[in-house]
Amino acid sequence: MINEIPEISLKRLPVYLNYLRNLDKEKNKYISSGAIALALGMGEVLVRKDLAYTEAVGRPKIGYLTEELITALESFLHCNEVRNAVIVGVGGIGRAILGYGGFKNYGIEMVAAFDSDEKKIGTTVAGKPVLSTTEFKSGLKQYNADMAVLTVPASAAQAVANELYEAGIKAILNFAPVQLTYPKHVIVRNIDVAARLAVLSTLIK
Amino acid sequence: MINEIPEISLKRLPVYLNYLRNLDKEKNKYISSGAIALALGMGEVLVRKDLAYTEAVGRPKIGYLTEELITALESFLHCNEVRNAVIVGVGGIGRAILGYGGFKNYGIEMVAAFDSDEKKIGTTVAGKPVLSTTEFKSGLKQYNADMAVLTVPASAAQAVANELYEAGIKAILNFAPVQLTYPKHVIVRNIDVAARLAVLSTLIK
Repeated sequence: MINEIPEISLKRLPVYLNYLRNLDKEKNKYISSGAIALALGMGEVLVRKDLAYTEAVGRPKIGYLTEELITALESFLHCNEVRNAVIVGVGGIGRAILGYGGFKNYGIEMVAAFDSDEKKIGTTVAGKPVLSTTEFKSGLKQYNADMAVLTVPASAAQAVANELYEAGIKAILNFAPVQLTYPKHVIVRNIDVAARLAVLSTLIK
Repeated sequence: MINEIPEISLKRLPVYLNYLRNLDKEKNKYISSGAIALALGMGEVLVRKDLAYTEAVGRPKIGYLTEELITALESFLHCNEVRNAVIVGVGGIGRAILGYGGFKNYGIEMVAAFDSDEKKIGTTVAGKPVLSTTEFKSGLKQYNADMAVLTVPASAAQAVANELYEAGIKAILNFAPVQLTYPKHVIVRNIDVAARLAVLSTLIK
C-alpha cells in the first residue's frame, strides 16, 4: 500500500489528520471530502483521491464517519506505533526540536541527541541524553532509533550523514542547507527555512 | 515571469543555486543541466525546464556558464535585494531562527521579533529587538518588513495570523501545526517538522 501512494499525497495526510483532530466531534460526526477540501483550500477530487489511499470508506452524500477517518489516517501514518528518532547537532534548532512536543501526535519520540562538542556530551537537553557523534552505531541501537533529524552546520552535514548511513540510519530529515548524497536504502529529505522564505518572497514580488 | 513559474519549480531554484554556489568554480566554469541533475538525483528534463524560467541561456553540448547561471538564479530569487522578515513567537524555534545565519544567502534579513510575553518585550535576541504583538502594524512599518515566520503555539496561531493580516503582512511561513485560513492577498506556507518526520517514518515502513 505504502509503495503505491505518491509522496506528494502522503505529505498531505498529516494535514488532513491535523484538521480532523481539531474538529468539534460533537458537531461533526460525519465529514465529507468536500468539506475538508473547502476548509483547507484544496480541490475536492484531490482530497478524495488522497483519502482513498487509506482504508477509510466514505458514504455517498454523507461522507466519512469522522472518527473512522481519523483512525484510518492514524493507522496509515503508523501514529499508534512508537518510532524513535534522534537529533544530530545540539545547536539552536536542534535544541528547539528536542523540546518540541508535537512529535507525539504521530507516535514519534525524540529519544536522544548526538553532538561532537565534549562540553555537551553527557549532558541532557529537554531531558534527552546527548551522546557523542563517535557513537552513532551503539547509540542508535541502544535507543532503538532509525531516523535522525540533522541539524549540524552545512560544512559538516555530508560527513556526519555518511557516518549515519554507516551506522544503519534509515531516514534523515536534514536542516542543513546542502543537498546530501545518500545510498539507495536511505531516505533523505530537506527542510531549508531560508530557501522557503526566499520562495515566499519571490511569490509576493 | 513569476506568475508563470509553478511553485513546485520555484521551490527547486534555491536547491540549484545552493548546489552551484558550492561548486569549485575553477573546475566547473561550465555546467550542464545533465550534470546538475546527476548531482542532485533529479531528472535532466526537469532541471532544464526549471532553469528555463530564469534568463540563463545554456549552450548545446557545453551547458551554462556557471557564474551566469548563478547570477540568473539570484536575480530570479531577488537575492540581491534586501527583504526584511520578522519572527513572531520567541520560543525555542523562534530563537533558533533569529540566530540562524543562512537567510543572508537569499538577501533576507531577520530584522525584529514579536512576542506577547512582557518579560521578553524590550529585550534583544541574537541582536534583534523583541517588540510587543500589540504593535504589529507600527513594528512592521518601522522595520519595513512584509514577511513573518510564525512560531507561536498552535492554539494561538490563527488569532495571531489574523492580526498580522490586519497589519498588512504579505507572506507567512508557519511553523505551528495548524492549517491557517488566510485572505487572498496573503500567502501562507507551512513547515510542520513532526508531520515531515511522520511521512519519512511511513516511507521506511
